[in-house]
Order: sequence, then structure tokens, then C-alpha cells
Amino acid sequence: MQNRQWLINGNPRGRAIELNDFRETSVELGVLGEDQVRVRTEWLSFDPSQKAQLENVSGYAKGNELGDVMYARGIGEVVESTSADIAVGAKVMGHLGWQEFADLPGRAVEVVADDAFLSARLGILGTTGLTAYFGLLRIGKPEPGDTVLTSGAAGAVGSVVGQIARIMGCETIGIAGGAAKCEWLTGELGFDAAIDYKAERVKSRLSELCPGGVNVFFDNVGGVALNDALARIATHARIVICGGIARYEEAKPAGPTNYFNIVFRQAVMEGFLLSGYERDYEVARERLQGWIESGQILHREDVQQGFDNIPATLMRLFSGANMGKQLLKLT
Amino acid sequence: MQNRQWLINGNPRGRAIELNDFRETSVELGVLGEDQVRVRTEWLSFDPSQKAQLENVSGYAKGNELGDVMYARGIGEVVESTSADIAVGAKVMGHLGWQEFADLPGRAVEVVADDAFLSARLGILGTTGLTAYFGLLRIGKPEPGDTVLTSGAAGAVGSVVGQIARIMGCETIGIAGGAAKCEWLTGELGFDAAIDYKAERVKSRLSELCPGGVNVFFDNVGGVALNDALARIATHARIVICGGIARYEEAKPAGPTNYFNIVFRQAVMEGFLLSGYERDYEVARERLQGWIESGQILHREDVQQGFDNIPATLMRLFSGANMGKQLLKLT
Repeated sequence: MQNRQWLINGNPRGRAIELNDFRETSVELGVLGEDQVRVRTEWLSFDPSQKAQLENVSGYAKGNELGDVMYARGIGEVVESTSADIAVGAKVMGHLGWQEFADLPGRAVEVVADDAFLSARLGILGTTGLTAYFGLLRIGKPEPGDTVLTSGAAGAVGSVVGQIARIMGCETIGIAGGAAKCEWLTGELGFDAAIDYKAERVKSRLSELCPGGVNVFFDNVGGVALNDALARIATHARIVICGGIARYEEAKPAGPTNYFNIVFRQAVMEGFLLSGYERDYEVARERLQGWIESGQILHREDVQQGFDNIPATLMRLFSGANMGKQLLKLT
Repeated sequence: MQNRQWLINGNPRGRAIELNDFRETSVELGVLGEDQVRVRTEWLSFDPSQKAQLENVSGYAKGNELGDVMYARGIGEVVESTSADIAVGAKVMGHLGWQEFADLPGRAVEVVADDAFLSARLGILGTTGLTAYFGLLRIGKPEPGDTVLTSGAAGAVGSVVGQIARIMGCETIGIAGGAAKCEWLTGELGFDAAIDYKAERVKSRLSELCPGGVNVFFDNVGGVALNDALARIATHARIVICGGIARYEEAKPAGPTNYFNIVFRQAVMEGFLLSGYERDYEVARERLQGWIESGQILHREDVQQGFDNIPATLMRLFSGANMGKQLLKLT
């Protein structure tokens, strides 16, 4: 049986990802080894950090090489198994990659329930939601009444950050690109305000919206958004650096010229990676699921379709086309 | 009786300080008001933050205006007093300004002992030493065995930071300009290593000196030093932003392009101002004085002389001419 795959074909360091950075191939599936499962990919998850990995940026998990199957987390069904613990027909989550079938050690995948939250485990109940949860609560340390500002607020992480902040009694402001996203934030998601960075001046809008300054800034974007937010921080502000999507396509991204404001404001700017919070995942997932079930958190999935569209779906993250978590369904 | 003064005559925002930014004048001393002291200035303290104040940068204490007596802390002798608490002949410390005599409310000055530590109270036992102490210990949170890197290491703050780090069992590395300063650091002050940024490449020297990365970076300088240090931080590093002297003379200082490394390293960058630590001043001063008396900390004062040299003495800080605390003795 054939297995179609997307291989890494270029290194997009310092520039935008192009379709040509990937090439399609097809290989014959072999005999499954011992203690392995063969997974038919059903869902793929897309995340800005995939570009960083593609560039072999040190610090994240190990990078990929030209000719490797493109790295990605996904969910699929076990179609063949030599693992004593995992039965054929089980749904599993793991690093499936951009391919129709993934042969993996049984211990490398996690069996998940085939329920209404199946795809949510790649988003709000997965690394996306956990990033929002721990990044905001453990690094941002918001207090009720604080003003919490989020960039990339209509994205998978940002939309959850703002809603958790709202639940705990913070004033929530989101920065997003375009009127549709901003309306979604202040309408369905209950943000107190949204700033359309494509149509409005972020710094002056912040002065109007929060004259007392920003207590917590959760940054998914970097670039101008970070610099403008730094100009408006309150004393003892916490700035969570989570993502830098604005920087990913520049050869020499600029640093935040307003960084010295952290001195005048005795503020903290801290980098966030999810690793290290594993022991608290279960509690966080329970709470996130509870908030979804009670309707306190809405989550949106942007679901693209089909093997052929995989590379173009990754590019949606960088053009800002997605609203909510970017996924693709293969079958 | 006449009182010679240096008044603010220009705003050096975005450029170097010039002699012409100050002008000399002389005024007749009036009758001292109630509860006041007239102080004859003996010592003046010089600090990079005086330039920021001159620029009316928000955040620090209130800025100065054109025509005001230039702001400065100093120590002098009370030559006349209408205060019940302060006798003529007492030595007092306070915001004397660049003038021969300062008329101040009695409560605005602090009576200090006329001992061997008199001038040290403007330096290592004053805001300089306290900045090093609280900035390093409360923000940097070094642990024995950590590598502690300091920029502006031969300056008043940096030289104390490195020595406290050495006392507590850290590996100490200083960045300074010129061979003489570097020899002072590794010789008299006991730094483990010094990097001459004028002659060496900071990033590659850091790779050699601390392959495991920098655990604590105490930044007095900003600019290239900050950016190079960010490239070499260890996981969970603490970056203390204390000063930005490299930025003070640029119209549009650049931000640290490597700031995103704080994500990969889960690091913290925090701004430090001394305000808020007042209740612990006494303990810190006792410890600093103890370390001086035991010889564990050496402190150096760069003492210029005479009223006429006051403006030029401030400029020494920005040309890097001073080694240790910059003072000037008037009488």
C-alpha cells in the first residue's frame, strides 16, 4: 500500500514559507516492526512554531532536515498494531507528520477518546490551550481588575488567553488584524475591546482604552505590536513573550526599541515555553474542558481539507487567514 | 554672599551631552527660611541617570527644566541652620545640586557621620551600592556556581555586582572597555574573566568562557552588549536591565534583536529601579560596609576637583573615562 508524504524541500529562514519548500512523494508501506502501530492520519495541527523548526532554530525541539517528512502533531486511527497495549481501531495522538500513514512505536502515541473533543485535543485541550493557560497564569500572573492585552488575539492561543483573563475578572483587550476578527473578539468572545492593527494606531488606542496602562501583555506576534505595548505598560507589568510570528518572515527582525521601559516601569518580560508544566497538564485540561462545556470559553477551529492542501494550510497562519485553531482533516 | 551655580541650558535628548548644555551663574544668597539648613557642597555624585533626567524621560524622578540648577546628590557641611534638629557643622547628604550652597528644608537632608565612609555614602554605601545589591540579589537571583555576567563592569555599579557575585560563589565575568579596566577586574577585584569589548568579540569570548551559558546577566549598558549576552543565555537565565548607557546618546536606539532567545531559554528580563527596597536599605548597607572593612569588596572612587569641572565630570561617564564611582570634590 502506498503512503503519500510531504517532505521538507527548502529552508525558509528569513523569508516567508513557499509551496516549493515542500515536495510530495509516495512510498510503499513496509512490514510493521515490533511494538508499533500504523496510524492513518485524520487530523493535522498547524502552529507557527513549525516554521521555527523548519529553520532549525536552536532551542525548540530538534529541527528537521531536508528530505525528512514534515514534522506535525496529529490524530488518527490505528489500522495495524503489534503493540500489546493499543488495539486496531483506537484513536491516537502523536507526531504523525505530513503523511497519510505513520508507523510509530506504541509508546510514542497517546490513545484518546473518540468523543466530541477529538480535534480539540490538538487545540484548546492540547498544546494550544495549555500554552494559553500556563503562559497567562504562571508568567502573566493576572489579578482581577488588571488590564490584560493580547496580540494575535483571534489566533488559537490568543483567543483562549483573553477568555481566561475575562473569566478571572480582568479587563481584556485584543489586538487583531481586520474588522471581522475584532468583531468576533468583542462579540462572541466577550473581550472588552479589540484593536484592529491594520486600521488603527495601536499606541494611541491603548492610551484611550487603558489610561492606567497594561498590567499583563501576552505577545504572540512580536514586532510593532510588542513595541507599542511596551510603550503603554503599567508599573510592575508582566510581559509574556510566547510567539513572534511577525518576525518569522524577516531576515533581520528588529528588536523592541522600547524595551528600556521595563526599567522605568519595574516590569518583567519573560519567555514562555510549555515544557516544564507537564505535571499540571491534567488539571489545566479539566478546567479548560469545563469552561468549554459551560460555555465560558468558545473555541473555534479553522478546518481545511485534504492531503494536497497541507502546505497551503500552514501558510494561512502567516498571512493571518485563520481565525482560531488551524487544523486540516485528511479523511 | 555669592552662590555659584550650574544651570541647565540644553536638552541632550538623542545626542551626547555638551558643555554648552550647562551655563554658570552666580546669585546672592538670601535669608534662610524656617526649618532650613544652608549646606556648603563638598562632594557631588555623578550617575548616568542624570542624563535621562535632563531629557525629562518619564518614569524616573521628575525631570529638570531649562534654567533650573542641575540636579545632583551630594554631601556637604551645614553652615547655617534654622532647624532644631540639625546643628551647624553637621555633615549632611541630599539633593544639593550643582551649586556651592544649597538651602534646603531640614527634613530633606540626612545627617551622616564624618568618618572614613563619608564619600562612600554617595557610592557603594549609597544608591550605587544599593542598586548593585538589590538588582543582583532580588532580580538576578544568582545561585552559587552560576555564571554571572556584568556589562559596564568597571563602573560604579558593575564593579560591585561582580564582587557580590564572587562572594557568593558565582563564576564572574565582566565586560568593560580597554585593557586597564579588564586588568583591574581580574586582578584587584577577583573577577574570573573580563572581556574587552573594544578589542574582543563578546559573543565568541562568551562561548569560550562559559559554554554552559550565562545564568545571570546584569546590564548597565544596553546596545550590543545586551544583544550579545542574550545570544548566550542559559535556560532559565535572569537578565537584569539596570542601565542603558549605550543608548543615551542615540536618537533612535535599537532594541535587542535577540530578545526572542528568552523564549527558547525560558528566561526572564526584568527592569530594575531602586524604589521599593527602602525598608531593606539598612541591612544592605551594613553588609556592604562589612565587606569593605573585611576587604572582600574593593571600591574605587574617581575623584575630580573643583566647581569649574562639574559639567566635564558628568561627561566622563559617557566617554567611559571613569573607573569606579565618579565623584567631584568642591572644597
